[in-house]
Amino acid sequence: MNSMTRIASRPYEFPDLTYLFRPRTIAVIGASEKPHSIGNHAMKNIVEHSDFTGTIYPVNPRQASVMGLQSYPDVASLPEPVDVLMVVIPAKGVREAVEQGGAMGCKFAVILTSGFSEADEWGRAEEAALVEIAQRTGIRIYGPNCPGLVNLNIPLGLTFSPAFKDDICPGPIALATQGGGLGRNMIQHSVRGAGFGCWSSSGNECDLQVADFVHHMAGDPDVKVICCLVEGFKDGARFAAACARAAEMGKPVVGLKVGRSAYGAKAAASHTASITGSAEVNSAVFAQLGVIEVDDLDEMLDVAQLLARKLPDGDEKFAIFASSGGAASLCADNVGMAGLELAEFTAETAQALAEALPPYAGMSNPIDTTSISISHPEAYRAALLACARDANVSLIVAPLPMDYGEYSVINSNSLLEVQRESPVPIVPVWMSERQGEGYHVLARGGAIPFRSLRNMRKALRRWVDHGRWRHARDEAWTSALVAAGSPGEAGQTRSLTEAEGKRLLAEAGVPATAPVVVAGEAEAREEAARIGGTLAMKVVSAAITHKSDIGGVRLGVAPEAAGEAFRAIMANAAAAHPCAAIDGVLIEPMARPGGVEAFVGLSRDPVFGHVMTFGLGGIHVELFADVARRMLPVTAAMAEDMIGELRAARLLTGYRGQPARDVKALAQLMEKVSEFAVSRPDLVELDINPVWVGAEGEGVLALDAVMVVQA
Amino acid sequence: MNSMTRIASRPYEFPDLTYLFRPRTIAVIGASEKPHSIGNHAMKNIVEHSDFTGTIYPVNPRQASVMGLQSYPDVASLPEPVDVLMVVIPAKGVREAVEQGGAMGCKFAVILTSGFSEADEWGRAEEAALVEIAQRTGIRIYGPNCPGLVNLNIPLGLTFSPAFKDDICPGPIALATQGGGLGRNMIQHSVRGAGFGCWSSSGNECDLQVADFVHHMAGDPDVKVICCLVEGFKDGARFAAACARAAEMGKPVVGLKVGRSAYGAKAAASHTASITGSAEVNSAVFAQLGVIEVDDLDEMLDVAQLLARKLPDGDEKFAIFASSGGAASLCADNVGMAGLELAEFTAETAQALAEALPPYAGMSNPIDTTSISISHPEAYRAALLACARDANVSLIVAPLPMDYGEYSVINSNSLLEVQRESPVPIVPVWMSERQGEGYHVLARGGAIPFRSLRNMRKALRRWVDHGRWRHARDEAWTSALVAAGSPGEAGQTRSLTEAEGKRLLAEAGVPATAPVVVAGEAEAREEAARIGGTLAMKVVSAAITHKSDIGGVRLGVAPEAAGEAFRAIMANAAAAHPCAAIDGVLIEPMARPGGVEAFVGLSRDPVFGHVMTFGLGGIHVELFADVARRMLPVTAAMAEDMIGELRAARLLTGYRGQPARDVKALAQLMEKVSEFAVSRPDLVELDINPVWVGAEGEGVLALDAVMVVQA
Repeated sequence: MNSMTRIASRPYEFPDLTYLFRPRTIAVIGASEKPHSIGNHAMKNIVEHSDFTGTIYPVNPRQASVMGLQSYPDVASLPEPVDVLMVVIPAKGVREAVEQGGAMGCKFAVILTSGFSEADEWGRAEEAALVEIAQRTGIRIYGPNCPGLVNLNIPLGLTFSPAFKDDICPGPIALATQGGGLGRNMIQHSVRGAGFGCWSSSGNECDLQVADFVHHMAGDPDVKVICCLVEGFKDGARFAAACARAAEMGKPVVGLKVGRSAYGAKAAASHTASITGSAEVNSAVFAQLGVIEVDDLDEMLDVAQLLARKLPDGDEKFAIFASSGGAASLCADNVGMAGLELAEFTAETAQALAEALPPYAGMSNPIDTTSISISHPEAYRAALLACARDANVSLIVAPLPMDYGEYSVINSNSLLEVQRESPVPIVPVWMSERQGEGYHVLARGGAIPFRSLRNMRKALRRWVDHGRWRHARDEAWTSALVAAGSPGEAGQTRSLTEAEGKRLLAEAGVPATAPVVVAGEAEAREEAARIGGTLAMKVVSAAITHKSDIGGVRLGVAPEAAGEAFRAIMANAAAAHPCAAIDGVLIEPMARPGGVEAFVGLSRDPVFGHVMTFGLGGIHVELFADVARRMLPVTAAMAEDMIGELRAARLLTGYRGQPARDVKALAQLMEKVSEFAVSRPDLVELDINPVWVGAEGEGVLALDAVMVVQA
Repeated sequence: MNSMTRIASRPYEFPDLTYLFRPRTIAVIGASEKPHSIGNHAMKNIVEHSDFTGTIYPVNPRQASVMGLQSYPDVASLPEPVDVLMVVIPAKGVREAVEQGGAMGCKFAVILTSGFSEADEWGRAEEAALVEIAQRTGIRIYGPNCPGLVNLNIPLGLTFSPAFKDDICPGPIALATQGGGLGRNMIQHSVRGAGFGCWSSSGNECDLQVADFVHHMAGDPDVKVICCLVEGFKDGARFAAACARAAEMGKPVVGLKVGRSAYGAKAAASHTASITGSAEVNSAVFAQLGVIEVDDLDEMLDVAQLLARKLPDGDEKFAIFASSGGAASLCADNVGMAGLELAEFTAETAQALAEALPPYAGMSNPIDTTSISISHPEAYRAALLACARDANVSLIVAPLPMDYGEYSVINSNSLLEVQRESPVPIVPVWMSERQGEGYHVLARGGAIPFRSLRNMRKALRRWVDHGRWRHARDEAWTSALVAAGSPGEAGQTRSLTEAEGKRLLAEAGVPATAPVVVAGEAEAREEAARIGGTLAMKVVSAAITHKSDIGGVRLGVAPEAAGEAFRAIMANAAAAHPCAAIDGVLIEPMARPGGVEAFVGLSRDPVFGHVMTFGLGGIHVELFADVARRMLPVTAAMAEDMIGELRAARLLTGYRGQPARDVKALAQLMEKVSEFAVSRPDLVELDINPVWVGAEGEGVLALDAVMVVQA
């Protein structure tokens, strides 16, 4: 395989972060008593607002003690290597502190200080020095340029945030972010009743990165769901491996990635100095990994809290329980828009509802109790209980369109009471901006009201979809993904000729035409006669990529016309590219007429490595962007999913009397292409366009191939 | 024109609702002192919670006075005809009360009582009787089955809602809803600082309907924006005319219509007994009328409040002012995702920012002040003021990712102070669920914080789009729309033959082939020879709609083969439809090869009347649903917009080296088709498929036409 250079893949190892999130000893470098200083906030958060039972060592050369604790002049003077070195001094002193900590065997440096790679040249050099210390001494670095991390299940706040003390709300949701502001926003969903476990906010990620925290959270028994809020991945394939681990552990991951627009990508890059990558690829990979992609922070919490309450199966049926006709209609509209299914009540439920509610109430699904919720709140409660006991109901949505003061309080309490009697999740949607006492009753009771019907609709859809993904998950694929490791850098590249590309594909088991390359007119005539039938002839030159534009392609050539075609092609190529090295002319049989043309593309994404793109040619891609994408490896089963995902899938499965196409063979081709790429990490780009797709049983054939590899 | 029956159109007249919203005299039929009764709530809302300075007449046969006011035994006993008869008695007594009110010359009956057409057969009959009373006596009816109406700019609450007293928040937003619950939800946005004027909630709409309220609000000087929350339209064309009036008056209309899914349509129909219609048509007509369609209630308020603050021009440029890098990135991402444009700061602004902010702050757009917002709030204020003074900035978005307690209060006050010094709207986005005092400072100050970046993104996009719509609005079209009036009921229908349809189109100026219909073989040969060239031949029978499926079509026929083709077509038609009346065979020249095929369809929507659908044939419609729709009339300019709206528009404007198509001629054809339909209200359906579209200058041609008219 002299044309390809193999690069060894690097399987992932993840660090043990137990003592980062549950340290036994902490040194605070820059501890201070000066009010409103970072060093003071950091100390107060540990000493006063946490429930930390280990040892705290303030480090401050100018004070003998800080907040009643003996202080040390520098890290080297500490009486023992600590689990966490918390660094809140200005940037110029950070390197020395970490060096000393690493030398004495400290486990983690949590560096909150800013002014490193996000700031300037000096900062970049200092950050590189920190990485070097970590590699040399084994100390692992968290940050720099971050607000710290918290473990609310202790609670322990390794952070300078003055908001820490107000946001202590233990619970099953773990949070991995880069910046601090957005993470704090998530935590403040505690006022809805949400609870959080560990929260990492890893800033510049010079060493530990989001993937490491996801991996840790996947193994943390206190965590049920992981939320990731990411501006850019240092290593997307590592993140994928961590998500695969979370899937194995049955912990859903919810993701929001900045960089879905050029403005966002630019701002994120300048904020965290990381690569944002392509939004389309990111979304495709998230979907593939089962990472539930959301559009905003509230949507992240919405779906996370549902997942924390119950892992879905994908076939859930819903009941709507409203006390206003308008809310019932709008709620039903939203359930329908999301493609979700309303449950049919059992006869028993129907009878119980008829007994509880007045005759003019809506008693099929959606239920509209009417204003009886105000006049007869006990009837509201009885009807809700009947609904919650229905075996056909997976989850109840209870839209509450307005704050009705004391009446809302009564109904909220009824909802919590019924919830205690039933395992069926009851999900209130507090639609009003006025969060009266009725709202707070629900929040305090852990019911975590949704803000709006739109948010409910999106969260339930994502919840059900995740149930489907869980059940369809391919464990073998996950292992393959983890084994594949990092794609590495692309560097310098070179193009192969079509003939060379097709030969490599054919060797890898991809059905491709086997072209002959001829260098002279006589040879062209001879080979054409030997192959027979109708022929395609194309110029062969690594320097000419748009062959047809320059008259370098002749299709439907009869063998007896091959000599003339050879001359014309060579003349056209020479005229258009006088300096290009031309290897000759490729001759191959034409594909049978009547096939559908598809394309299979591979590219090396800077974040996630090899990504396959599949679609039909022409207007399908160019006008309708109708493509499916996957991170490699792609199995034949996944390839069939990709084919089915196209809006134009019907063109392959039989459209307007056309025969169904050989989808099985197409999927196998895609699997072979994936195997080929995985075995050759130096592959930078591959475009098989078109792939001829015959009718069922006729197979498929790669008719053209553009391949780019590392030089 | 013997084949078409003309139906007179009915231009709209709208009632004067001044004394409904600002009555001088009110009688409360069913006034009561019984606590928690509807009649008591209704009285208390007028007497205790309103600022009503006119006369109130309680009507209650069992009490001499109610709440200190003299009571009357029935409506007939009232000392004068009142402006508003407010009816809160059970359904069985309503008809008599309204009859008496109508007889004595009362202007409006506001009927809150339920149990009419939404309930049962008896209720439907009673409601019909109310309509008859209204038509006979001139009294106008509001309701029944509704919570009443309010005018918060007085304030006056003609409602039984116990929440009325808590939701008095005068302001520029008017609200037209059908049910009450969702409207109350909107009003409760007052806790964000939003203010509302009149609110109608018109229930079953047996007489007055949403369109009448929109028309009234358009003329109310206290109103700047109209929000419509609709479950179904009684008369969509009337609503369109009211929206046209609002546009003339410069009052944007924001709309949310239930019925975007089958569940929603069914629930809405059972709730309000109105037609929900097609969601696709509704969205198309909203867009055409400049009604800003939203997806949820919070989105409705979001865009309405922006419009109330400033009418946009469509070329707005935005500044992002954040104090967290993550919030700045995510906000920029959202601005980019919405396709909005960030402003470039002037040199003056850049200098002012550099003076106010530390060197590590983000000083291009988005601005990230960093945590200086906490440590140096005066710098935050100075930077915001610099930004607000920049001539390139149309609006400032200020994302606030979390509640920072006292620090948030300081920054919120700065924001309000800067807003007072600048006409540039400053829009805070309070992203956190925790609404601390900093939030309430903004709300009380009228800054109406957005709930999330996603909501901000959607609202700003809609706001800018509405600016573009305002400037592109075609006033002549509006007048034509209003003049066109109601489409009426379709009733029994019949199909015309292709030949007849094409003749009518040709007479109306639509380029169409002029076919000859022949009844015998000899005639076929003769006419074929006369026409010459290559011919199309098709069976002519009003009973056969799928002509090609039964072998009733021959294309590319040479004149000398016309006799044989005639025989074959007649035989196939007779075999497939032995009982169908067959008029003969149509002969016409084939279209030139090489054109693009489009289709132009007209249908009569039950809500909005004639609607045109335009698209390209085949997969474009079937797989990608790539069509554009408009309510009639469609001008040539609007038709060009429709053509440009298609995702596949490039196939008409020149794609992959193909020549540009005759878009001008196509747009003219569409205008002629629209004129034809407007002049013939009995047209039920018209499908011109395909329309042959030649290259620029070659024109267009209707190659087939299926026309259905009222019988």
